Amino acid sequence: MAVRVNRVVTLASRPTGFPDESNFALVEQPAPEPGPGEVLARVLWTSVDPYQRGRMSEARSYAKPVQLGEEMTAQSLGEVVESNDPRFEPGDLVVGQLGWQDFAAARAGSLRKLPRELDPPTLALHVIGTTGFTAYFGLLDVCGPRPGDTVVVSGAAGAVGQIVGQIAKLMGCRTVGIAGGPEKKADLLELYGYDVAVDYKNEHVRASLKESCPEGVDVYFDNVGGEISAAVHGRLNVGARIAICGQISQYNAERPEPSFHPGLLIVFRAKMQGFLVSDYVHRFDEAARRLARWIAEGKLRWREDVTDGLEHAPRAFLGMLRGENRGKALVKVADHH
Amino acid sequence: MAVRVNRVVTLASRPTGFPDESNFALVEQPAPEPGPGEVLARVLWTSVDPYQRGRMSEARSYAKPVQLGEEMTAQSLGEVVESNDPRFEPGDLVVGQLGWQDFAAARAGSLRKLPRELDPPTLALHVIGTTGFTAYFGLLDVCGPRPGDTVVVSGAAGAVGQIVGQIAKLMGCRTVGIAGGPEKKADLLELYGYDVAVDYKNEHVRASLKESCPEGVDVYFDNVGGEISAAVHGRLNVGARIAICGQISQYNAERPEPSFHPGLLIVFRAKMQGFLVSDYVHRFDEAARRLARWIAEGKLRWREDVTDGLEHAPRAFLGMLRGENRGKALVKVADHH
Repeated sequence: MAVRVNRVVTLASRPTGFPDESNFALVEQPAPEPGPGEVLARVLWTSVDPYQRGRMSEARSYAKPVQLGEEMTAQSLGEVVESNDPRFEPGDLVVGQLGWQDFAAARAGSLRKLPRELDPPTLALHVIGTTGFTAYFGLLDVCGPRPGDTVVVSGAAGAVGQIVGQIAKLMGCRTVGIAGGPEKKADLLELYGYDVAVDYKNEHVRASLKESCPEGVDVYFDNVGGEISAAVHGRLNVGARIAICGQISQYNAERPEPSFHPGLLIVFRAKMQGFLVSDYVHRFDEAARRLARWIAEGKLRWREDVTDGLEHAPRAFLGMLRGENRGKALVKVADHH
Repeated sequence: MAVRVNRVVTLASRPTGFPDESNFALVEQPAPEPGPGEVLARVLWTSVDPYQRGRMSEARSYAKPVQLGEEMTAQSLGEVVESNDPRFEPGDLVVGQLGWQDFAAARAGSLRKLPRELDPPTLALHVIGTTGFTAYFGLLDVCGPRPGDTVVVSGAAGAVGQIVGQIAKLMGCRTVGIAGGPEKKADLLELYGYDVAVDYKNEHVRASLKESCPEGVDVYFDNVGGEISAAVHGRLNVGARIAICGQISQYNAERPEPSFHPGLLIVFRAKMQGFLVSDYVHRFDEAARRLARWIAEGKLRWREDVTDGLEHAPRAFLGMLRGENRGKALVKVADHH
C-alpha cells in the first residue's frame, strides 16, 4: 500500500492582535500509524471555532496552547480507516479533537461514534455536538431560564448563539438576539425565531435594547464581551443571570481592557458565571438526546457555512473571527466514500 | 411637656469624589410626632457604614438617594419614647433605619425589638444585625463554602469582614484576610482567628497571596474591589465563587474604572455574584439565632470603634471610608436611662 500523505495545517507563528494567514502553514507528512488502543481516522469535515484563537496564544488559560509547528487543534468529523480498538471498525464515523489535517491517530476513548441515522452527519460538529451542548448547558444550567424571562444573546447568529435563542424559546422565554449586519438580523428573526433582533453594526445597541426590553433583561448569554455587553448590563433586572460563554470581541486585543464593574452585580443582585462545555462531558448524552429530539420535531433550525478544502481552514477561521460566517462555519476536507 | 429638640445630621451637598464634613449639616428641629401605627424613638446609638456613601449620590442604585436637606439614612438603636402600636411600649429597645438624629418617628413594622438579654445591645447594630446577616448570607448562601476551601476576605477587619472570616473558620475553611496596617493585621490573626493576614499597605498583595494560597482561592468575599481584588482574581481555582458584597475602593472615585475581565470567569468556570442583605429579610431570624449562639459559645468575637456624640457622625463616617476604624464603627448618641 502506498504511504498515505497527510496534509497538516500547523501553527507557524503566534499572532499579536488579529491573526492572519501567515500564522499558519500547510505541510505534508506521512500519515500517522495508529498505536495500541488507537484509531486512524480520515478527516471529512473540520470545524473553526472562537476558542481556537485562545489556543494560538501562550497566555494562561484552561487548556494548553498549540505549540509552534504543531497541527491546529480542532473538532473534526472523520471516518475510521484502521482501528486498534474493538469499539471501532473501518467505516465508522467519529467526532473528536482530530485537528486540521487529513489523517489523525487518536485514542479510541477520546472519540464519539456517530449514530448511522444522523443526517447530515455534520450535525455532530454543531447542533448535536459541543456547540449545541455549549448552548444547552450554558443556558439551562448556568442561567436557569424561567418562562416569561427576557433572554438576550450576543453573537446570536453564531454557532452557539443561534441554538441558545431557540432553546430559550422552547423554555417559554422572550428572546432578543444581537448580531452584526442585516443578513444576520434576518436570520435571527426568520430562521432562529428570535422575538427581536438588534443589528449592532447599524443600530444604537443601547437604544434598541431600551426599546426591545422594556421590562429589563433577566438572562444574558454573553458570547462577545466588550461594549455590546456593557450595553446589555445597563438593562439588567434584579436577579439577572449572566453566562460568560465567550468574549470574542476581546480575543484579538493586544491588551484587552477591563470592561466590567463588579459593583453592578450588587445593584442588581446579579450572577455572572463562566463555564466550559468540557465540564459537562458526563451529561453530553442527555444533551444529545434532547437536541436530536428537538431537531426531529422540527423545533430546532440551523445553517451551515461551508468552506471547501483543508487548505482554506485558516481563511475560514479568520472569517469567522471577523463575523463573516452565516451559520456554523465548517471546512469540508474530503468526500465520504 | 417641653418641646423636644431634635438634632439632625442632614445631607447638605452631594460630594464629587471623596466626601468631607462640608457635605453634612447639623440642624435643630422640633422632634417629630409619631402618627398612627408609628413609634417615637430616642436614638441611643447610630451606625456608619459604607453603603451610606451610595445614598449620598444620585447615581442609579438599589435604593433611593438621600435628598438634600434630609437626614442621613442610618441604622440606629433607639429606645421607644411613645408608641402608637400595641407591639411596642416605652422603654423597649429597637433597631431600625432611624437616621442620624436624636428622635425618629418610624412605622412600627419597620422596627425590630431587641431581646432584653442582648448584651451589649449594640450587638444589634453589628454581629446580630444587618452587618452580621450580610456576612452570614453572603458567605453561606452566595459562596457555599466547603471544608478545606481557601476563603479570602478583603476588608477583612471591617464590620462585615471580621465576621465572614470567623464563620468561614466555623465551616472548616482556611481563611486569608486582607486589611490595611499592622494593627488590623494583628486583629485579623489574634482577634478574628484568620489563618493568614495580608497587610496591603505594607506588603505586595500578589506576592503575599501567592505564598499564602499555594492551593489557590476557592472563595473570595469581596468588600473592596479595585486592585486588591485583581490580585485575588489572579489566584482563583477552577469552580471559584466570588461574592460581591461591597466595592469600597470605588465608591469615592469620580469615574470608577472598569476593573474586571469577565473572560476570567471562563478560565476558572467561576461565579461572581452580588447580593444585598435586604433580600434575606425573611431569614433574619435564622441568622440572628445562629450568630447569637456562636457568641454565647465564645466562637465569635468582635470589636467596636466608638465615636461619642451625634455631631461627630460625619467624622466617624469619613474615618470609616478611609479605613481608620478598628472594629465596627458606631456613634454614641445618648445614654440609655
